[in-house]
Amino acid sequence: MRHAVILAGGSGTRLWPASRRARPKQLLAIGASNEPLVVSAICRGKAVSEHTVIVTARDLVEQTRPLAPGDTIIAEPVGRNTAAAIGYAAALIEARDPNAVLVILPADQYVADEPGLARAIETAMTAVDNDDAIATIAIPPTRPETGFGYIEVAPDDTAAVRRVVRFVEKPDRATAERYVASGRHFWNAGIFIASARRLLAELDVHLPVTAAAMRELARVDPKELEQHAARIYPTLPSISIDHAVMEKASGVVTVPAAVGWDDVGSWASLPAIRGVDATGNTTVGTALVIDGTGNVVVSDDDTLVATVGLDDFVVVKSGNAILVIRKDQAQDVRKVIDALSARGLARYL
Amino acid sequence: MRHAVILAGGSGTRLWPASRRARPKQLLAIGASNEPLVVSAICRGKAVSEHTVIVTARDLVEQTRPLAPGDTIIAEPVGRNTAAAIGYAAALIEARDPNAVLVILPADQYVADEPGLARAIETAMTAVDNDDAIATIAIPPTRPETGFGYIEVAPDDTAAVRRVVRFVEKPDRATAERYVASGRHFWNAGIFIASARRLLAELDVHLPVTAAAMRELARVDPKELEQHAARIYPTLPSISIDHAVMEKASGVVTVPAAVGWDDVGSWASLPAIRGVDATGNTTVGTALVIDGTGNVVVSDDDTLVATVGLDDFVVVKSGNAILVIRKDQAQDVRKVIDALSARGLARYL
Repeated sequence: MRHAVILAGGSGTRLWPASRRARPKQLLAIGASNEPLVVSAICRGKAVSEHTVIVTARDLVEQTRPLAPGDTIIAEPVGRNTAAAIGYAAALIEARDPNAVLVILPADQYVADEPGLARAIETAMTAVDNDDAIATIAIPPTRPETGFGYIEVAPDDTAAVRRVVRFVEKPDRATAERYVASGRHFWNAGIFIASARRLLAELDVHLPVTAAAMRELARVDPKELEQHAARIYPTLPSISIDHAVMEKASGVVTVPAAVGWDDVGSWASLPAIRGVDATGNTTVGTALVIDGTGNVVVSDDDTLVATVGLDDFVVVKSGNAILVIRKDQAQDVRKVIDALSARGLARYL
Repeated sequence: MRHAVILAGGSGTRLWPASRRARPKQLLAIGASNEPLVVSAICRGKAVSEHTVIVTARDLVEQTRPLAPGDTIIAEPVGRNTAAAIGYAAALIEARDPNAVLVILPADQYVADEPGLARAIETAMTAVDNDDAIATIAIPPTRPETGFGYIEVAPDDTAAVRRVVRFVEKPDRATAERYVASGRHFWNAGIFIASARRLLAELDVHLPVTAAAMRELARVDPKELEQHAARIYPTLPSISIDHAVMEKASGVVTVPAAVGWDDVGSWASLPAIRGVDATGNTTVGTALVIDGTGNVVVSDDDTLVATVGLDDFVVVKSGNAILVIRKDQAQDVRKVIDALSARGLARYL
């Protein structure tokens, strides 16, 4: 059976002040659909699988539960990155369904063309079903993004399902520009399709302590699972599935898919996922932009946000905080988080 | 007897969103003293006079009353600029005190050196007492401001009390720069000292309809005054005392006074009246300025305003609105008022 595994453990500082410790990015209704990103991800999974599992932080279960009625929720006691989250889900699912195939989807992404992504996943599934491959989705890059990892394929490979030559770490700007021009480098969207058995076998080889821990947890009486996980999880290494497995495994394939994918990595993503108005601005809520273009202006309530003479700025009012930053520096919101943490101003985090 | 006449009728759009229709600039606690500007103006008047009269809009009486316990409040049914406000106060005061001397003070200004201003007013008073002059206070210009009227004195005049050669309208930039360099041009602070009798006599000559209306109102039974004023006031011309009288009267004198005067004409005034911190920013309330200088950042409650990488910006959260604008364009806040008015968004005005 196919199981969608929604990775919903993100802490989400990059969309502060909308995202907070208690309300990470996947819980924000930031897309044009006005539904939380995790709801879109759950739908994405249901389009290609029969059963949905959401892996989230224990502290977020209460908020996530109403968004996923009827689905399975796995609660991590602490975050240990994607290798642990995927390993935990794979072990629990494989214990009940030894032939399980997993479609692993991050909960905090935006996809413009959902049917297109579903078709790409179906294509990837043929390689999983026929060859027990690990398959990924490859997004043709639209800009020299230095914040993503890349997937490299062979120069002459134009098949629907291509062999991955290697995974590449976040490149520098010049390298990223070469990648965009190359035609054989793609963004790694963090979407993986593989059998649970294969994933666990790779973890056995490349991350044996984590694999053993997950296999042990899968044998625990469900009533005692939370208690056991709380003991084991903090001891595990925090590492991504890319570093732990994908970069080392053989027989990894990928399916290119130009589906309007966006990682919603900062407020600068908003124009791509919500569009721009006739003045070139992207506004949400009560906003008034005078003499300016290229701005992202957001208000989460009846508070008016008015800008005069600004171009390419981000101004966001959310809850008890307001952020003003240049759009091309939007990732520097991290500096606000750091300053607030350093000053103990937790009520704004 | 000396009477301070506090002109407190301003509508105050230039400090939006702190200033609103229902809360004009003089009611804002914007100075370092954290008291409303009108309270500072009342104290300014009491330093040089025995009786205080506040002329304000009828709609503002309720808010002004608690700020002026024991003082006289004159309510204008509608605003008709300073000639009407001063004429009304002069007529009502002169009816009870024919020898009244008025110290006319705008309610919405900031003065760093209050004792210095009091000394300048006392100096001006000698010319009023001895020669029945109309006296003004002349502020040595510190920048080529194009938003103020100027007072010109003779080039060789270095007396404490100088004869006004002429009042000059708001100049263009090049003219303003010449004025700053000339040493004989001063900002017209709108502060006047004169006998009520002299002021009314000038109005008789230069603005006879207004003068007659005010003399009539001064004869009305106080119980019926509001009703009479409501009938007469809307028929009067809206004109400043500068245009109506000062530019035409003879024997006008002025006392230069470098007293750190500021008209609080926009948010760009805030650094001058509240100072700047070690990072070169002026913040009020819960503000966090990261990587930036020259900013004015204001929050009127517990809402955090965070800026990253901005220089020379104004960011103000007040009530149900937020303004973001470049400091050197701060006067363009008027465009927000116009847009909100045009859209009928009165709840933000």
